[in-house]
Amino acid sequence: MTRIRTRVAIVGAGPAGLFLSHLLDAAGIESIVFDSRTREEIESTIRAGILEQGTVEVLSQSGASDRVLTDGHRHDGIELRFAGAGHRIDFPAHVGRSVWLYPQHEVLKDLIAARLAAGQDIRFGTTIARVEGVDSELPRVFAADADGAPLEVDADFVVGADGSRSVVRAAVTGSSTGGYFREYPFAWFGILCEAPPSADELIYSNSENGFALISQRSETVQRMYFQCDPEADPNALSEAEIWDTLQARVPGTTLKEGPIFQRDVLRFRSFVAHELQRGRAALVGDAAHTVPPTGAKGMNLAIADVLVLNRALQALLLRGDEQPLHAYADIASQRIWKAQHFSWWMTSMLHVAPDASDFDRRRQLGELRSVVESEAGKTYLAEAYTGWPLAVGL
Amino acid sequence: MTRIRTRVAIVGAGPAGLFLSHLLDAAGIESIVFDSRTREEIESTIRAGILEQGTVEVLSQSGASDRVLTDGHRHDGIELRFAGAGHRIDFPAHVGRSVWLYPQHEVLKDLIAARLAAGQDIRFGTTIARVEGVDSELPRVFAADADGAPLEVDADFVVGADGSRSVVRAAVTGSSTGGYFREYPFAWFGILCEAPPSADELIYSNSENGFALISQRSETVQRMYFQCDPEADPNALSEAEIWDTLQARVPGTTLKEGPIFQRDVLRFRSFVAHELQRGRAALVGDAAHTVPPTGAKGMNLAIADVLVLNRALQALLLRGDEQPLHAYADIASQRIWKAQHFSWWMTSMLHVAPDASDFDRRRQLGELRSVVESEAGKTYLAEAYTGWPLAVGL
Repeated sequence: MTRIRTRVAIVGAGPAGLFLSHLLDAAGIESIVFDSRTREEIESTIRAGILEQGTVEVLSQSGASDRVLTDGHRHDGIELRFAGAGHRIDFPAHVGRSVWLYPQHEVLKDLIAARLAAGQDIRFGTTIARVEGVDSELPRVFAADADGAPLEVDADFVVGADGSRSVVRAAVTGSSTGGYFREYPFAWFGILCEAPPSADELIYSNSENGFALISQRSETVQRMYFQCDPEADPNALSEAEIWDTLQARVPGTTLKEGPIFQRDVLRFRSFVAHELQRGRAALVGDAAHTVPPTGAKGMNLAIADVLVLNRALQALLLRGDEQPLHAYADIASQRIWKAQHFSWWMTSMLHVAPDASDFDRRRQLGELRSVVESEAGKTYLAEAYTGWPLAVGL
Repeated sequence: MTRIRTRVAIVGAGPAGLFLSHLLDAAGIESIVFDSRTREEIESTIRAGILEQGTVEVLSQSGASDRVLTDGHRHDGIELRFAGAGHRIDFPAHVGRSVWLYPQHEVLKDLIAARLAAGQDIRFGTTIARVEGVDSELPRVFAADADGAPLEVDADFVVGADGSRSVVRAAVTGSSTGGYFREYPFAWFGILCEAPPSADELIYSNSENGFALISQRSETVQRMYFQCDPEADPNALSEAEIWDTLQARVPGTTLKEGPIFQRDVLRFRSFVAHELQRGRAALVGDAAHTVPPTGAKGMNLAIADVLVLNRALQALLLRGDEQPLHAYADIASQRIWKAQHFSWWMTSMLHVAPDASDFDRRRQLGELRSVVESEAGKTYLAEAYTGWPLAVGL
């Protein structure tokens, strides 16, 4: 059994954990990052990536990722399509800011490269079993290293950045599932295909047949989704059936088709842990909360959490000031619940619930018209989509 | 049996029917208004009355009511209260217009006086049994006059302005209940009391204990509501219990109490008739749609319907042009479904549903914060509350 000591044990080498290690290092606070996956697994998992302008700014200004500005694609709007017509929401015109399309795995490549170049200790392939002693001043993380050998980590602070199946969460909330949650009666059938973009910007389409989202990855790879049953088998449809389904849900646009090389069913869940901090441990990102993907808030919310926790940990570990840590949950929660609302709103406004009545359906179309016919409505949506001002900066 | 002939048979002497007769008369089109109630019953039923600025303008400019400007109270805002704090939405600051508090029975007194002074034939106490022949050019209304004697009315057109229990509706939709509808798992316990105002403007309060609305009638009479079970017995609570319930739901304001002289339980319903027009008959106001009272849209929507139908009837009866009549349902529906959405939104954002989870409750507070922390959010709400521009004017 090996025992090591660090100031901050960060569980999870996703965007939240890596970005936190980056910010702590800049403040002179040593940390170790643990992840059960290999570097290759982390870098090859293709995930969505709409970055708010504030997220892009802190990633680039902190030196965590320069590529987001050069390789990312700025999107100045989205289209809401319903009742046979498209309605663009122009972000700069309404709120003076934009979003960037830059997939999460690219953010991860940048962060891993930058952290390793800076000498960051990242323990890939290290599985965390549990965290103990968070009410003491020296909590301990029990783990197994890449060879399966036991590893114990003593730290001044433990951060759970270990995603929706967080192991650290139990030490903070008292149970692995303790939280506020909501499930949805539908899921997304997602594909990756080799094809040129069908549109310049994301199309969120509400159709009689259900929701579809047309999004882009690059000049040659596209990501598209359509609303499906949560129990749907991703392999039950032929490629032709998938294209027919997508095409029927974006009337007015002829989709550019190509070989589908990945397909998956994404289940929706809204979740917020009952507690975000306890003693010498805190949760950030998906370990603290998950949102349905419709609002494109996942990674952005993780980065916002990290900014708040970074300041709190600097106060605690550099100055012995516990007050900012005690305020962490309250400050982070303000944004989390606005983002939960926005994600729920976009989801419920755009999808057709299986039990929707004719009244519900017409009310939904009345809502979509209310938004796009109103400068204020479009601004209200654009403010949320492009991201509210960050409570805490770098 | 008496048979009479009129150009337009208007069933219902509420705001919609009377205002339509006023506009038709101004265009030289004769009509008769029928209502099963007596004039005294109509004028003494105390009902809510928030008038959009557009409603006030058409009522005063058409000469239907001058008193709305002199005796009505202009309200330049409402307060949304939640999580222990109040947040005012300033209407002129956000949208450059206001609303007027002027109870519906006062509108009715003005309209009845103006119509009778102009020689309008209003048949109080006349009960309509059914309407036949709307697909012909001379539909017939079967009725019983105030003495119970049979009365048949031949008309070029029949208007159903006869409220939520409309008899005319069956001739338009094919069934007395044919429509899109939604019920809500709560109702309003409403009181009228002798007391001075507790606040200058309406307070919409979302509290842990449920919703409450503090509204005003005059310097000496107030109207207040609190969310209750739809099956609640209005007589089951003592006055002290009513005040305790109300007070607990508007923490931060000390309500001015006084003798309660009316109490009722208002059930909520959203409804839109499947068809708004068929042949030579059309529906306006509550006969066409009902909304939950939270959005204060009921009478305003009725007036907006009437403006559209007035133009259509002038085209039909003065020029033989049927096209505007065929467009009536589409034009009216645009506003109706936006108002249905707004009414649903205000209702669901402010009430605590009996089956609301902890997640739902926190999301709701996140939504309320999203609105009041955003100039665009407050503007979007104020636009709807004060009324979207009318599609058709006088």
